[in-house]
Amino acid sequence: MTPANLPHLLHELKQHLLFLSGQVEDAVAKVVQAIMTRDSRLAREVIAADTEIDNLEVRIEGECQRILALHQPVAGDLRFVVATLKINNDLERMGDLAKKIGKNVVYLCGVPPTGAQPDFREIAEKARSMVKRSIDAFVNADAELARQVMADDDAVDQLKDELYEELRTAIRSNPDELEALLKLYGVTRNLERLGDMATHVAEEVIFIVEGDIVRHSAGG
Amino acid sequence: MTPANLPHLLHELKQHLLFLSGQVEDAVAKVVQAIMTRDSRLAREVIAADTEIDNLEVRIEGECQRILALHQPVAGDLRFVVATLKINNDLERMGDLAKKIGKNVVYLCGVPPTGAQPDFREIAEKARSMVKRSIDAFVNADAELARQVMADDDAVDQLKDELYEELRTAIRSNPDELEALLKLYGVTRNLERLGDMATHVAEEVIFIVEGDIVRHSAGG
Repeated sequence: MTPANLPHLLHELKQHLLFLSGQVEDAVAKVVQAIMTRDSRLAREVIAADTEIDNLEVRIEGECQRILALHQPVAGDLRFVVATLKINNDLERMGDLAKKIGKNVVYLCGVPPTGAQPDFREIAEKARSMVKRSIDAFVNADAELARQVMADDDAVDQLKDELYEELRTAIRSNPDELEALLKLYGVTRNLERLGDMATHVAEEVIFIVEGDIVRHSAGG
Repeated sequence: MTPANLPHLLHELKQHLLFLSGQVEDAVAKVVQAIMTRDSRLAREVIAADTEIDNLEVRIEGECQRILALHQPVAGDLRFVVATLKINNDLERMGDLAKKIGKNVVYLCGVPPTGAQPDFREIAEKARSMVKRSIDAFVNADAELARQVMADDDAVDQLKDELYEELRTAIRSNPDELEALLKLYGVTRNLERLGDMATHVAEEVIFIVEGDIVRHSAGG
Protein backbone atom coordinates (compact mmCIF):
# COMPACT_ATOMS: atom_id res chain seq x y z
CA MET A 1 0.00 0.00 0.00
CA THR A 2 1.16 3.47 -0.85
CA PRO A 3 0.97 6.05 1.92
CA ALA A 4 -2.20 8.13 1.86
CA ASN A 5 -0.56 11.51 2.35
CA LEU A 6 -1.91 14.62 0.65
CA PRO A 7 0.73 15.07 -2.09
CA HIS A 8 0.32 11.44 -3.04
CA LEU A 9 -3.48 11.70 -3.16
CA LEU A 10 -3.30 14.88 -5.27
CA HIS A 11 -0.91 13.14 -7.64
CA GLU A 12 -3.35 10.25 -7.98
CA LEU A 13 -6.22 12.65 -8.52
CA LYS A 14 -4.33 14.22 -11.42
CA GLN A 15 -3.68 10.81 -12.94
CA HIS A 16 -7.36 9.91 -12.71
CA LEU A 17 -8.39 13.20 -14.30
CA LEU A 18 -5.94 12.57 -17.15
CA PHE A 19 -7.38 9.10 -17.59
CA LEU A 20 -10.92 10.47 -17.74
CA SER A 21 -9.79 13.08 -20.24
CA GLY A 22 -8.27 10.31 -22.34
CA GLN A 23 -11.60 8.48 -22.37
CA VAL A 24 -13.37 11.64 -23.55
CA GLU A 25 -10.75 12.25 -26.26
CA ASP A 26 -11.17 8.66 -27.41
CA ALA A 27 -14.93 9.10 -27.62
CA VAL A 28 -14.52 12.23 -29.74
CA ALA A 29 -12.02 10.59 -32.09
CA LYS A 30 -14.18 7.49 -32.49
CA VAL A 31 -17.46 9.29 -33.03
CA VAL A 32 -15.95 11.36 -35.84
CA GLN A 33 -14.52 8.25 -37.43
CA ALA A 34 -18.01 6.76 -37.15
CA ILE A 35 -19.61 9.69 -38.93
CA MET A 36 -17.02 9.80 -41.71
CA THR A 37 -17.32 6.06 -42.40
CA ARG A 38 -21.05 5.72 -41.62
CA ASP A 39 -20.19 3.13 -38.99
CA SER A 40 -23.19 2.78 -36.69
CA ARG A 41 -21.52 -0.03 -34.74
CA LEU A 42 -18.69 2.31 -33.74
CA ALA A 43 -21.20 5.06 -32.88
CA ARG A 44 -23.01 2.64 -30.58
CA GLU A 45 -19.69 1.82 -28.92
CA VAL A 46 -19.22 5.51 -28.13
CA ILE A 47 -22.74 5.71 -26.72
CA ALA A 48 -22.11 2.66 -24.53
CA ALA A 49 -18.70 3.92 -23.37
CA ASP A 50 -20.36 6.99 -21.83
CA THR A 51 -21.34 4.86 -18.83
CA GLU A 52 -17.66 4.34 -18.04
CA ILE A 53 -17.06 8.10 -18.30
CA ASP A 54 -19.96 8.72 -15.92
CA ASN A 55 -18.57 6.17 -13.45
CA LEU A 56 -15.13 7.77 -13.57
CA GLU A 57 -16.66 11.15 -12.82
CA VAL A 58 -18.50 9.81 -9.78
CA ARG A 59 -15.29 8.16 -8.54
CA ILE A 60 -13.18 11.31 -8.96
CA GLU A 61 -15.80 13.39 -7.16
CA GLY A 62 -15.67 10.89 -4.29
CA GLU A 63 -11.89 11.23 -4.16
CA CYS A 64 -12.19 15.04 -3.96
CA GLN A 65 -14.70 14.75 -1.13
CA ARG A 66 -12.49 12.37 0.82
CA ILE A 67 -9.47 14.64 0.37
CA LEU A 68 -11.47 17.64 1.57
CA ALA A 69 -12.87 15.75 4.54
CA LEU A 70 -9.77 13.91 5.71
CA HIS A 71 -6.82 16.04 4.60
CA GLN A 72 -8.16 19.59 4.80
CA PRO A 73 -6.05 21.04 2.02
CA VAL A 74 -5.39 24.80 2.07
CA ALA A 75 -4.29 27.51 -0.35
CA GLY A 76 -3.14 26.15 -3.72
CA ASP A 77 -4.08 22.55 -2.88
CA LEU A 78 -7.60 23.60 -1.93
CA ARG A 79 -7.99 25.63 -5.12
CA PHE A 80 -6.78 22.62 -7.08
CA VAL A 81 -9.35 20.27 -5.52
CA VAL A 82 -12.17 22.81 -5.99
CA ALA A 83 -11.19 23.28 -9.63
CA THR A 84 -10.99 19.51 -10.11
CA LEU A 85 -14.60 19.20 -8.94
CA LYS A 86 -15.69 21.61 -11.67
CA ILE A 87 -13.43 20.30 -14.42
CA ASN A 88 -14.43 16.73 -13.63
CA ASN A 89 -18.05 17.81 -14.14
CA ASP A 90 -17.06 19.50 -17.42
CA LEU A 91 -15.37 16.34 -18.66
CA GLU A 92 -18.51 14.36 -17.96
CA ARG A 93 -20.50 16.89 -20.02
CA MET A 94 -17.99 16.59 -22.84
CA GLY A 95 -18.59 12.85 -22.74
CA ASP A 96 -22.32 13.60 -23.02
CA LEU A 97 -21.64 15.65 -26.15
CA ALA A 98 -19.75 12.76 -27.74
CA LYS A 99 -22.68 10.52 -26.85
CA LYS A 100 -25.13 12.99 -28.41
CA ILE A 101 -23.10 13.01 -31.60
CA GLY A 102 -23.10 9.21 -31.47
CA LYS A 103 -26.89 9.23 -31.44
CA ASN A 104 -26.92 11.54 -34.45
CA VAL A 105 -24.56 9.17 -36.26
CA VAL A 106 -26.83 6.20 -35.55
CA TYR A 107 -29.75 8.20 -37.01
CA LEU A 108 -27.70 9.22 -40.05
CA CYS A 109 -26.62 5.61 -40.71
CA GLY A 110 -30.30 4.66 -40.89
CA VAL A 111 -31.17 7.10 -43.71
CA PRO A 112 -29.73 7.49 -47.21
CA PRO A 113 -26.46 9.48 -47.36
CA THR A 114 -26.99 13.19 -48.00
CA GLY A 115 -25.62 14.74 -51.20
CA ALA A 116 -23.42 17.05 -49.15
CA GLN A 117 -20.83 15.15 -47.09
CA PRO A 118 -19.21 17.73 -44.82
CA ASP A 119 -15.74 16.81 -43.62
CA PHE A 120 -15.73 16.98 -39.82
CA ARG A 121 -12.20 15.67 -39.37
CA GLU A 122 -10.42 18.99 -38.96
CA ILE A 123 -12.89 20.57 -36.50
CA ALA A 124 -13.09 17.32 -34.51
CA GLU A 125 -9.32 16.90 -34.36
CA LYS A 126 -8.94 20.51 -33.19
CA ALA A 127 -11.66 20.08 -30.56
CA ARG A 128 -10.15 16.80 -29.35
CA SER A 129 -6.72 18.36 -29.08
CA MET A 130 -8.20 21.33 -27.17
CA VAL A 131 -9.76 18.94 -24.66
CA LYS A 132 -6.43 17.13 -24.22
CA ARG A 133 -4.35 20.27 -23.83
CA SER A 134 -6.82 22.00 -21.50
CA ILE A 135 -6.55 19.09 -19.05
CA ASP A 136 -2.77 18.86 -19.51
CA ALA A 137 -2.60 22.60 -18.78
CA PHE A 138 -4.66 22.06 -15.66
CA VAL A 139 -2.67 19.22 -14.13
CA ASN A 140 0.63 20.95 -14.96
CA ALA A 141 -0.57 24.46 -13.99
CA ASP A 142 0.61 25.59 -17.42
CA ALA A 143 -0.96 28.97 -18.21
CA GLU A 144 0.93 29.25 -21.50
CA LEU A 145 -0.63 26.02 -22.81
CA ALA A 146 -4.02 27.21 -21.56
CA ARG A 147 -3.64 30.40 -23.61
CA GLN A 148 -2.90 28.33 -26.71
CA VAL A 149 -6.14 26.41 -26.14
CA MET A 150 -8.06 29.67 -25.88
CA ALA A 151 -6.49 30.92 -29.11
CA ASP A 152 -7.58 27.73 -30.91
CA ASP A 153 -11.21 28.43 -30.11
CA ASP A 154 -11.33 31.02 -32.90
CA ALA A 155 -10.16 28.43 -35.42
CA VAL A 156 -12.89 26.04 -34.29
CA ASP A 157 -15.49 28.80 -34.55
CA GLN A 158 -14.37 29.58 -38.06
CA LEU A 159 -14.52 25.91 -39.10
CA LYS A 160 -18.00 25.73 -37.59
CA ASP A 161 -19.09 28.79 -39.60
CA GLU A 162 -17.77 27.19 -42.80
CA LEU A 163 -19.57 23.91 -42.08
CA TYR A 164 -22.80 25.81 -41.22
CA GLU A 165 -22.55 27.65 -44.54
CA GLU A 166 -21.97 24.40 -46.43
CA LEU A 167 -25.00 22.85 -44.71
CA ARG A 168 -27.26 25.87 -45.37
CA THR A 169 -26.34 25.68 -49.03
CA ALA A 170 -27.16 21.96 -48.99
CA ILE A 171 -30.53 22.61 -47.31
CA ARG A 172 -31.39 25.18 -49.98
CA SER A 173 -30.57 22.81 -52.83
CA ASN A 174 -31.88 19.59 -51.22
CA PRO A 175 -34.77 20.52 -48.95
CA ASP A 176 -35.92 16.89 -49.01
CA GLU A 177 -32.81 15.99 -47.00
CA LEU A 178 -33.69 18.56 -44.33
CA GLU A 179 -33.85 16.22 -41.32
CA ALA A 180 -30.50 14.58 -42.03
CA LEU A 181 -28.87 17.92 -42.80
CA LEU A 182 -30.15 19.36 -39.50
CA LYS A 183 -28.57 16.38 -37.70
CA LEU A 184 -25.28 17.25 -39.41
CA TYR A 185 -25.84 20.84 -38.27
CA GLY A 186 -26.21 19.50 -34.73
CA VAL A 187 -22.99 17.47 -35.04
CA THR A 188 -21.15 20.64 -36.08
CA ARG A 189 -22.61 22.57 -33.15
CA ASN A 190 -21.69 19.88 -30.63
CA LEU A 191 -18.11 19.68 -31.90
CA GLU A 192 -17.88 23.45 -31.49
CA ARG A 193 -19.32 23.16 -27.96
CA LEU A 194 -16.54 20.70 -27.10
CA GLY A 195 -14.08 23.42 -28.07
CA ASP A 196 -16.06 25.92 -25.95
CA MET A 197 -15.92 23.67 -22.94
CA ALA A 198 -12.18 23.10 -23.33
CA THR A 199 -11.83 26.90 -23.52
CA HIS A 200 -13.79 27.17 -20.27
CA VAL A 201 -11.33 24.77 -18.63
CA ALA A 202 -8.39 26.75 -20.05
CA GLU A 203 -9.82 29.99 -18.62
CA GLU A 204 -10.14 28.28 -15.26
CA VAL A 205 -6.47 27.23 -15.45
CA ILE A 206 -5.35 30.79 -16.12
CA PHE A 207 -7.63 32.01 -13.34
CA ILE A 208 -5.95 29.62 -10.92
CA VAL A 209 -2.40 30.06 -12.12
CA GLU A 210 -2.45 33.81 -12.50
CA GLY A 211 -5.32 34.72 -10.19
CA ASP A 212 -6.63 36.46 -13.24
CA ILE A 213 -10.32 36.84 -14.03
CA VAL A 214 -10.29 35.99 -17.71
CA ARG A 215 -13.08 33.48 -17.21
CA HIS A 216 -16.01 35.60 -18.10
CA SER A 217 -14.49 38.06 -20.51
CA ALA A 218 -14.54 35.91 -23.66
CA GLY A 219 -17.38 33.86 -25.15
CA GLY A 220 -20.39 32.78 -23.14
CA MET B 1 -21.52 41.85 12.65
CA THR B 2 -23.15 38.46 12.55
CA PRO B 3 -21.12 35.56 13.93
CA ALA B 4 -19.25 33.66 11.24
CA ASN B 5 -20.16 30.17 12.42
CA LEU B 6 -20.67 27.36 9.95
CA PRO B 7 -24.50 27.08 10.08
CA HIS B 8 -24.75 30.82 9.55
CA LEU B 9 -22.34 30.73 6.59
CA LEU B 10 -24.19 27.81 5.02
CA HIS B 11 -27.47 29.68 5.43
CA GLU B 12 -25.96 32.71 3.70
CA LEU B 13 -24.58 30.50 0.95
CA LYS B 14 -28.08 29.17 0.29
CA GLN B 15 -29.47 32.71 0.14
CA HIS B 16 -26.82 33.73 -2.37
CA LEU B 17 -27.48 30.69 -4.53
CA LEU B 18 -31.20 31.50 -4.49
CA PHE B 19 -30.43 35.08 -5.48
CA LEU B 20 -28.26 33.89 -8.37
CA SER B 21 -31.01 31.52 -9.44
CA GLY B 22 -33.46 34.44 -9.39
CA GLN B 23 -31.18 36.42 -11.71
CA VAL B 24 -31.04 33.49 -14.14
CA GLU B 25 -34.83 33.05 -14.02
CA ASP B 26 -35.23 36.77 -14.72
CA ALA B 27 -32.93 36.53 -17.70
CA VAL B 28 -34.94 33.61 -19.12
CA ALA B 29 -38.26 35.40 -18.63
CA LYS B 30 -36.98 38.61 -20.19
CA VAL B 31 -35.31 37.04 -23.17
CA VAL B 32 -38.50 35.23 -24.10
CA GLN B 33 -40.51 38.41 -23.75
CA ALA B 34 -37.90 40.03 -26.00
CA ILE B 35 -38.32 37.37 -28.68
CA MET B 36 -42.13 37.44 -28.57
CA THR B 37 -42.25 41.25 -28.86
CA ARG B 38 -39.17 41.67 -31.10
CA ASP B 39 -37.66 43.92 -28.45
CA SER B 40 -33.93 44.18 -29.14
CA ARG B 41 -33.45 46.67 -26.29
CA LEU B 42 -34.69 44.10 -23.80
CA ALA B 43 -32.52 41.41 -25.41
CA ARG B 44 -29.48 43.67 -24.99
CA GLU B 45 -30.40 44.13 -21.33
CA VAL B 46 -30.31 40.35 -20.86
CA ILE B 47 -26.93 40.17 -22.59
CA ALA B 48 -25.56 42.93 -20.35
CA ALA B 49 -27.00 41.39 -17.17
CA ASP B 50 -24.91 38.25 -17.74
CA THR B 51 -21.91 40.09 -16.28
CA GLU B 52 -23.73 40.35 -12.95
CA ILE B 53 -24.51 36.61 -13.08
CA ASP B 54 -20.84 35.88 -13.75
CA ASN B 55 -19.79 38.07 -10.82
CA LEU B 56 -22.24 36.33 -8.51
CA GLU B 57 -20.83 32.96 -9.52
CA VAL B 58 -17.27 34.05 -8.76
CA ARG B 59 -18.39 35.40 -5.37
CA ILE B 60 -20.24 32.21 -4.42
CA GLU B 61 -17.27 30.09 -5.40
CA GLY B 62 -15.09 32.25 -3.17
CA GLU B 63 -17.51 31.71 -0.28
CA CYS B 64 -17.33 27.94 -0.79
CA GLN B 65 -13.55 28.02 -0.78
CA ARG B 66 -13.45 30.07 2.41
CA ILE B 67 -15.88 27.72 4.12
CA LEU B 68 -13.80 24.70 3.09
CA ALA B 69 -10.55 26.33 4.19
CA LEU B 70 -11.66 27.89 7.47
CA HIS B 71 -14.53 25.74 8.71
CA GLN B 72 -13.66 22.28 7.45
CA PRO B 73 -17.22 21.02 7.07
CA VAL B 74 -17.79 17.26 7.19
CA ALA B 75 -20.48 14.77 6.14
CA GLY B 76 -23.70 16.43 4.95
CA ASP B 77 -22.26 19.95 5.17
CA LEU B 78 -19.29 18.99 3.06
CA ARG B 79 -21.50 17.32 0.45
CA PHE B 80 -23.64 20.46 0.37
CA VAL B 81 -20.65 22.74 -0.26
CA VAL B 82 -19.25 20.43 -2.93
CA ALA B 83 -22.65 20.31 -4.66
CA THR B 84 -22.95 24.09 -4.40
CA LEU B 85 -19.68 24.45 -6.30
CA LYS B 86 -21.10 22.41 -9.16
CA ILE B 87 -24.60 23.89 -9.14
CA ASN B 88 -23.17 27.40 -8.99
CA ASN B 89 -21.21 26.56 -12.14
CA ASP B 90 -24.38 25.19 -13.73
CA LEU B 91 -26.29 28.38 -12.95
CA GLU B 92 -23.60 30.44 -14.62
CA ARG B 93 -23.93 28.23 -17.73
CA MET B 94 -27.69 28.71 -17.67
CA GLY B 95 -27.04 32.45 -17.64
CA ASP B 96 -24.82 31.93 -20.69
CA LEU B 97 -27.70 30.18 -22.46
CA ALA B 98 -30.01 33.14 -21.79
CA LYS B 99 -27.30 35.43 -23.15
CA LYS B 100 -26.95 33.25 -26.27
CA ILE B 101 -30.68 33.46 -26.85
CA GLY B 102 -30.41 37.24 -26.34
CA LYS B 103 -27.87 37.39 -29.17
CA ASN B 104 -30.21 35.42 -31.41
CA VAL B 105 -33.02 37.85 -30.58
CA VAL B 106 -30.84 40.84 -31.48
CA TYR B 107 -30.10 39.16 -34.83
CA LEU B 108 -33.77 38.36 -35.42
CA CYS B 109 -34.81 41.96 -34.66
CA GLY B 110 -32.48 43.12 -37.42
CA VAL B 111 -34.10 41.02 -40.16
CA PRO B 112 -37.71 40.94 -41.44
CA PRO B 113 -40.05 38.82 -39.29
CA THR B 114 -40.37 35.23 -40.51
CA GLY B 115 -43.71 33.97 -41.76
CA ALA B 116 -43.77 31.34 -39.02
CA GLN B 117 -43.87 32.88 -35.54
CA PRO B 118 -43.36 30.00 -33.11
CA ASP B 119 -44.72 30.60 -29.63
CA PHE B 120 -41.90 30.04 -27.15
CA ARG B 121 -43.84 31.12 -24.07
CA GLU B 122 -44.86 27.69 -22.82
CA ILE B 123 -41.48 25.98 -23.23
CA ALA B 124 -39.70 29.00 -21.73
CA GLU B 125 -42.05 29.21 -18.77
CA LYS B 126 -41.61 25.49 -18.11
CA ALA B 127 -37.83 25.76 -18.37
CA ARG B 128 -37.76 28.82 -16.09
CA SER B 129 -39.90 27.07 -13.52
CA MET B 130 -37.64 23.99 -13.70
CA VAL B 131 -34.63 26.17 -12.96
CA LYS B 132 -36.40 27.75 -9.99
CA ARG B 133 -37.65 24.48 -8.52
CA SER B 134 -34.35 22.65 -9.02
CA ILE B 135 -32.56 25.26 -6.93
CA ASP B 136 -35.38 25.35 -4.37
CA ALA B 137 -35.15 21.57 -4.17
CA PHE B 138 -31.40 21.84 -3.59
CA VAL B 139 -31.44 24.41 -0.81
CA ASN B 140 -34.34 22.62 0.93
CA ALA B 141 -32.98 19.09 0.29
CA ASP B 142 -36.39 18.28 -1.20
CA ALA B 143 -36.10 15.09 -3.25
CA GLU B 144 -39.82 15.08 -4.01
CA LEU B 145 -39.62 18.49 -5.69
CA ALA B 146 -36.49 17.35 -7.54
CA ARG B 147 -38.43 14.38 -8.94
CA GLN B 148 -41.14 16.75 -10.19
CA VAL B 149 -38.48 18.73 -12.04
CA MET B 150 -37.17 15.55 -13.65
CA ALA B 151 -40.68 14.60 -14.73
CA ASP B 152 -41.15 18.02 -16.38
CA ASP B 153 -38.18 17.41 -18.63
CA ASP B 154 -40.31 15.16 -20.83
CA ALA B 155 -42.86 17.94 -21.33
CA VAL B 156 -40.08 20.32 -22.36
CA ASP B 157 -38.69 17.74 -24.77
CA GLN B 158 -42.10 17.29 -26.32
CA LEU B 159 -42.59 21.05 -26.72
CA LYS B 160 -39.15 21.22 -28.31
CA ASP B 161 -40.09 18.46 -30.78
CA GLU B 162 -43.28 20.33 -31.71
CA LEU B 163 -41.37 23.58 -32.24
CA TYR B 164 -38.72 21.78 -34.29
CA GLU B 165 -41.43 20.28 -36.48
CA GLU B 166 -43.07 23.69 -36.94
CA LEU B 167 -39.70 25.18 -37.90
CA ARG B 168 -38.84 22.37 -40.33
CA THR B 169 -42.17 22.91 -42.04
CA ALA B 170 -41.42 26.64 -42.23
CA ILE B 171 -37.96 25.97 -43.72
CA ARG B 172 -39.51 23.74 -46.39
CA SER B 173 -42.08 26.37 -47.39
CA ASN B 174 -39.83 29.44 -46.96
CA PRO B 175 -36.25 28.43 -47.75
CA ASP B 176 -35.38 32.11 -48.25
CA GLU B 177 -35.89 32.62 -44.51
CA LEU B 178 -33.46 29.81 -43.69
CA GLU B 179 -30.98 31.84 -41.60
CA ALA B 180 -33.64 33.39 -39.38
CA LEU B 181 -35.46 30.07 -39.01
CA LEU B 182 -32.22 28.34 -37.98
CA LYS B 183 -31.79 31.04 -35.30
CA LEU B 184 -35.28 30.19 -34.03
CA TYR B 185 -34.23 26.54 -34.10
CA GLY B 186 -31.27 27.51 -31.92
CA VAL B 187 -33.55 29.40 -29.50
CA THR B 188 -35.68 26.27 -29.13
CA ARG B 189 -32.63 24.11 -28.51
CA ASN B 190 -31.23 26.47 -25.89
CA LEU B 191 -34.53 26.62 -24.02
CA GLU B 192 -34.55 22.83 -23.99
CA ARG B 193 -30.96 22.81 -22.72
CA LEU B 194 -32.04 25.02 -19.83
CA GLY B 195 -34.51 22.30 -18.91
CA ASP B 196 -31.76 19.69 -19.28
CA MET B 197 -29.49 21.60 -16.94
CA ALA B 198 -32.23 22.01 -14.35
CA THR B 199 -32.78 18.25 -14.63
CA HIS B 200 -29.07 17.71 -14.00
CA VAL B 201 -29.37 19.80 -10.82
CA ALA B 202 -32.46 17.85 -9.76
CA GLU B 203 -30.60 14.55 -10.27
CA GLU B 204 -27.79 15.90 -8.11
CA VAL B 205 -30.31 16.78 -5.38
CA ILE B 206 -31.72 13.27 -5.37
CA PHE B 207 -28.19 11.86 -5.39
CA ILE B 208 -27.38 13.90 -2.30
CA VAL B 209 -30.65 13.41 -0.47
CA GLU B 210 -31.07 9.75 -1.19
CA GLY B 211 -27.49 8.73 -1.90
CA ASP B 212 -28.95 7.37 -5.08
CA ILE B 213 -27.13 7.25 -8.38
CA VAL B 214 -29.89 8.48 -10.66
CA ARG B 215 -27.55 11.07 -12.13
CA HIS B 216 -26.38 9.25 -15.16
CA SER B 217 -29.30 6.98 -15.86
CA ALA B 218 -31.55 9.43 -17.77
CA GLY B 219 -30.72 11.76 -20.62
CA GLY B 220 -27.15 12.76 -21.45
